[in-house]
Amino acid sequence: MSHARDDTQAIRWVGDHLSLLDQRLLPREVTYIACHDADSAADAIRSMVVRGAPAIGITAAYAVALSARTHFARAGAAWRAAVTADLAMLRETRPTAVNLMWALDVMAAACADIDGDPYPPLLALALRLHDEDLAANRAMGDFGASLIAPGSGVLTHCNAGALATAGYGTALGVIRSAWRDGRLAAVYAGETRPWLQGARLTVWELMQDGIDVSLIADSAAAWLMAQGRVQWVITGADRVAANGDTANKIGTYGLATLARAHGVRFMIAAPLSTIDIATASGADIVIEHREGRELTQLGGVEVAAPGVRALNPVFDVTPAHLIDALVTEKGVIERPDRASIAALCAA
Amino acid sequence: MSHARDDTQAIRWVGDHLSLLDQRLLPREVTYIACHDADSAADAIRSMVVRGAPAIGITAAYAVALSARTHFARAGAAWRAAVTADLAMLRETRPTAVNLMWALDVMAAACADIDGDPYPPLLALALRLHDEDLAANRAMGDFGASLIAPGSGVLTHCNAGALATAGYGTALGVIRSAWRDGRLAAVYAGETRPWLQGARLTVWELMQDGIDVSLIADSAAAWLMAQGRVQWVITGADRVAANGDTANKIGTYGLATLARAHGVRFMIAAPLSTIDIATASGADIVIEHREGRELTQLGGVEVAAPGVRALNPVFDVTPAHLIDALVTEKGVIERPDRASIAALCAA
Repeated sequence: MSHARDDTQAIRWVGDHLSLLDQRLLPREVTYIACHDADSAADAIRSMVVRGAPAIGITAAYAVALSARTHFARAGAAWRAAVTADLAMLRETRPTAVNLMWALDVMAAACADIDGDPYPPLLALALRLHDEDLAANRAMGDFGASLIAPGSGVLTHCNAGALATAGYGTALGVIRSAWRDGRLAAVYAGETRPWLQGARLTVWELMQDGIDVSLIADSAAAWLMAQGRVQWVITGADRVAANGDTANKIGTYGLATLARAHGVRFMIAAPLSTIDIATASGADIVIEHREGRELTQLGGVEVAAPGVRALNPVFDVTPAHLIDALVTEKGVIERPDRASIAALCAA
Repeated sequence: MSHARDDTQAIRWVGDHLSLLDQRLLPREVTYIACHDADSAADAIRSMVVRGAPAIGITAAYAVALSARTHFARAGAAWRAAVTADLAMLRETRPTAVNLMWALDVMAAACADIDGDPYPPLLALALRLHDEDLAANRAMGDFGASLIAPGSGVLTHCNAGALATAGYGTALGVIRSAWRDGRLAAVYAGETRPWLQGARLTVWELMQDGIDVSLIADSAAAWLMAQGRVQWVITGADRVAANGDTANKIGTYGLATLARAHGVRFMIAAPLSTIDIATASGADIVIEHREGRELTQLGGVEVAAPGVRALNPVFDVTPAHLIDALVTEKGVIERPDRASIAALCAA
């Protein structure tokens, strides 16, 4: 049972373990890290070996299967308590990505129904979530592409690509489908400081697919829009609240604000598992801050004045009224709000 | 005759030559480069040893004095033709900084009136321009600070500081005066990709003055504004057109747009020598693009996917209607336009 595909495949199940592409080393090195238990998978999420909300969810699902294998071998029928502890541990690895919570909820619910060895059914479920995410991305790609007029320029931020998902990508899935259909005059990727997901990952995976892309500094986006070179900004999401407010990589909210000011449209592409009905609005989303070091160092070299304090919020919240289209695997909501999101989730 | 001051002094005249702080190495190394002729000063401008519109102008003024010394020694009374050629060469070093053209015009006009050895009077003029820039910055600092309500947070971009000028700074002069007057609750500096002038220079010089500063990713500005933590965005300028449209470091236009959307005020601090009446509007300003390598490499290390095309405009134009205050050494213009700028320049 193997899910090995190409080099833009961030998550592979290989026989008896999880193999994760170490995205911290891209594009210089293509190296995989093997996870044989839940602890190593949790470490990989925490340290950003794997990143991107859907990819984090899938990794966590496999981690639960690995946890069950470990604890059934050790404790037999008493496996459940230890797996429950691992579920709690996994839940704490990254606070913003709601797909993580969603995947763990799905896995936890499955645990309740199992008799005997929990590993085979939990692994089958993780593999199914993995396949479903890929199928969802292809569907989103086609839905999103249909909104884009031929000859458009698009700008994306961070990496909501094959690397952030089971494959094909959310925002980059839309760009892949639109490119395939000949709709795109230009693709721009913001470098996405401080982690440079745009420069390191998005540009790399688009070039691997032969999609013509130009890298820009994040702060060049307004200039690009003023020149009329961008018709759509397209990003993924880490969490969509019940009213449509959306948490995504720091900088997304600024791009959405700039897009509105320039008559540029703004699209979020995210699977239903990213929608968190339990979060009423963006005000209820706690923003993760990471170490200032991510901003003051680059490749281990200090780039900023020694001792400076850095403020490093890694997400921001885009209010629903700035979102022109929310693209999911079940279809598109234009100008999402509480009612349209509730209807989609219930459909 | 020496203008040696402290380490934030980017330009020093030391006895018989110009000494330039190599800003490419800051904050890791404080190294000065000696320029004994116009060619080496021109190289220093081109390669960004010295940067910042006022500092470029002052450097060019000294370069003209050095050129006159060289050519008077070689050619005696026939020095003028060679200095004229150097004036043309210096004019091409950086296209956007209008202070460069202004300083060269002042020096060229002085050349016309000289009998005998041109070096002493041209050096005296360069030293006077240097001193006047420092005085202008102190005046601007106080004018700008008077606009800032106590308890405000301010955000600056790039480095419009002592390092970019004769000392004290334009935007950072305003911040220095406002800090001295106890008006500032918080100072934020955007790191300013791709050259990291904010992280490397602004933060360094503010810390040397004991001013409490926090570094942010450029793309975190909108988040900061949405939190109500910033009341003013304050930047310098590379060129102000006759109608008030202003060219400055890439990202400035985006910040001005975001400021307006958040009810945050936007201030440009720039000496009169930055105002170019001959440029009717921002549409007439040609934007300098630099090598994509500035974006794809950091400290000589490739950070982006190999072979990617990068688009690296280094300035953008902020339209006058987004500027709440234009602060000069002669006073403040609120909401600058063609009439108010013409009146100020004529006063």
